[in-house]
Amino acid sequence: TQNYRITLLPGDGIGPEIMAVAVDVLKVVGTKFDIEFAFQEALIGGAAIDATGEPLPTATLDTCRDSDAVLLAAIGGYKWDNLPSHQRPEAGLLGLRAGLGLFANLRPAQILPQLIDASTLKREVVEGVDIMVVRELTGGIYFGKPKGIFETETGEKRGVNTMVYSESEIERIGRVAFETARKRSGKLCSVDKANVLEVSQVWRDRITKLSAEYPDVELSHLYVDNAAMQLVRAPKQFDTIVTGNLFGDILSDAAAMLTGSIGMLPSASLGASSPGVYEPVHGSAPDIAGQDKANPLAQVLSAAMMLRYGLNQPQAADSIEKAVLQVLEQGDRTGDIMSPGMNLLGCQAMGKSLIQAL
Amino acid sequence: TQNYRITLLPGDGIGPEIMAVAVDVLKVVGTKFDIEFAFQEALIGGAAIDATGEPLPTATLDTCRDSDAVLLAAIGGYKWDNLPSHQRPEAGLLGLRAGLGLFANLRPAQILPQLIDASTLKREVVEGVDIMVVRELTGGIYFGKPKGIFETETGEKRGVNTMVYSESEIERIGRVAFETARKRSGKLCSVDKANVLEVSQVWRDRITKLSAEYPDVELSHLYVDNAAMQLVRAPKQFDTIVTGNLFGDILSDAAAMLTGSIGMLPSASLGASSPGVYEPVHGSAPDIAGQDKANPLAQVLSAAMMLRYGLNQPQAADSIEKAVLQVLEQGDRTGDIMSPGMNLLGCQAMGKSLIQAL
Ligand SMILES: CC(C)[C@H](C(=O)O)[C@@H](O)C(=O)O
Ligand SMILES: CC(C)[C@H](C(=O)O)[C@@H](O)C(=O)O
Repeated sequence: TQNYRITLLPGDGIGPEIMAVAVDVLKVVGTKFDIEFAFQEALIGGAAIDATGEPLPTATLDTCRDSDAVLLAAIGGYKWDNLPSHQRPEAGLLGLRAGLGLFANLRPAQILPQLIDASTLKREVVEGVDIMVVRELTGGIYFGKPKGIFETETGEKRGVNTMVYSESEIERIGRVAFETARKRSGKLCSVDKANVLEVSQVWRDRITKLSAEYPDVELSHLYVDNAAMQLVRAPKQFDTIVTGNLFGDILSDAAAMLTGSIGMLPSASLGASSPGVYEPVHGSAPDIAGQDKANPLAQVLSAAMMLRYGLNQPQAADSIEKAVLQVLEQGDRTGDIMSPGMNLLGCQAMGKSLIQAL
Repeated sequence: TQNYRITLLPGDGIGPEIMAVAVDVLKVVGTKFDIEFAFQEALIGGAAIDATGEPLPTATLDTCRDSDAVLLAAIGGYKWDNLPSHQRPEAGLLGLRAGLGLFANLRPAQILPQLIDASTLKREVVEGVDIMVVRELTGGIYFGKPKGIFETETGEKRGVNTMVYSESEIERIGRVAFETARKRSGKLCSVDKANVLEVSQVWRDRITKLSAEYPDVELSHLYVDNAAMQLVRAPKQFDTIVTGNLFGDILSDAAAMLTGSIGMLPSASLGASSPGVYEPVHGSAPDIAGQDKANPLAQVLSAAMMLRYGLNQPQAADSIEKAVLQVLEQGDRTGDIMSPGMNLLGCQAMGKSLIQAL
């Protein structure tokens, strides 16, 4: 028996509901593959603010550090939107990324044949789209200093943030991207704004230099504005994309929306040695929280990514991914991905269907 | 007779070809509406680099300042891509924006019924899309300091750019956006990343405060990642969008690509008192330069924007816009917007067809 300690961070909104489904699925998969999970729940985001006043209590970070992997659901909600920024749920997420050194964010955007009609793009444009965005997650303008709100001599406010990358930060995320591209189709597109930003020139130069070590990977470069266009124009041209924190935030969401079903998309945030964090791309959807309407599949697929990238259990990951495809094949749908003729299920019922498929 | 001095900046690639068409069209419109244009050509971009070593010669900036409006075609090309950044064609464009104080960039993205099939999005998703992106153009991370490439103590390179906005800069672009929204459907969406960036918090606060002066405009806010998603998911929800320089660069291109035909899209860059610059959204397309294949319609529509926003000649602008719709209605198409059953025309022939339509 393999034993793993998993920290669960259900967070806010629909978080607890979808987390419950993922845990049930993991338990069944555990039995099947002789894996034992010791689950430990901890507070983050709005839930943590309500209980402790802080979006990321030290106890939570400690628990995460002590575990083999972290499964996160979703954070945030209207309720906490007017707090000062360092006390908001998002600060908990950023603190977790920084605290665990999770510099590499993997965001797949894959069109599933069963859900292709959910896309707002024409079938022939998105059929077969399978993009992996590798986003730098602990640097760039999210963390660069100086930052803050300052007063000018004339008494007006001035907001400042700094986009900064050093060669070693770029190399580190670059390696993850080249390795990822190598395991996929061997095509890597690096996105920057090197025609305007010095930070992007350093980015482009370092990635280009690194490419000499990966002769089997075909490297291309795009400016971020053009990349945003090309994702809409011809998304199939992309395989692996590597980019900085802010551009990755924007482009990974744009890529995700090409599928039309962001309720399906998982992500992984990885560090050099610390446990990774696995979470759906979608938010906490406070408007449908507690109504058993949420789609748990992105959370379940995040658990699969955890098994694959964090725990080195590819077979268990495969079996979850297959079960997800099977329930879709059966016509099971939650409200967000519903289409005529399919079976509308709630969050819990979708969980049961998955377990049957397993 | 009204007299206007117009500076023409044909620039690089297809620039001269499409500019020639726009000038012919302006001449005809001038006769029709009793307007006399004094055209003065000047160098910018790669063409200026080749002739003078600089992407924006002082003489060019002086000529622009002395004129009533500036019509720009396109700059850049592979040939100059390896020069240091301050000597590249793009530096000429940034210098022109800064030199003329063009803080407001208006980028319409409108689906024309005749070209709706060019969109990669489904007809029902894009039918009727009519978005105006108001992008701040002389501030933010494009111009913020400190910027540059520095060496760290450990001898590695570190690229730095600064995203900065002061309240007065935000107010200035905000007013343009509220006025624009007021003349359109009365809906304004401000895009920022206020959940992470302090500069965006100042942005959001100042825009919100300003909205008190425009009670007839309905203001909403979106984070930039969500805005990128929503443009793909449901573009019809947008009317006017206001955002900073970098986010505007990315989102205006994404919005443009929703139409599927960026060869059709004009833009205007306006200052407080200086002449505005009017230019197509597309680039210099060096691969088809000199082959009479370029689509001149974005350039021609930029001339229409010039008449409308810069010279206060709305009727002349209307007549150009109508002529463009008419040639499309007739089935005239350049290669980039060609579809089965239409008449394929070269750049010059499209110009002739326009003049006939006028
Ligand atoms: C919630 C927010 C801070 C976060 C980010 O910007 O990174 C989110 O958008 C994401 O992409 O995970
Ligand atoms: C060429 C480049 C400097 C420019 C920009 O980034 O502003 C272009 O992309 C644009 O949008 O006009």
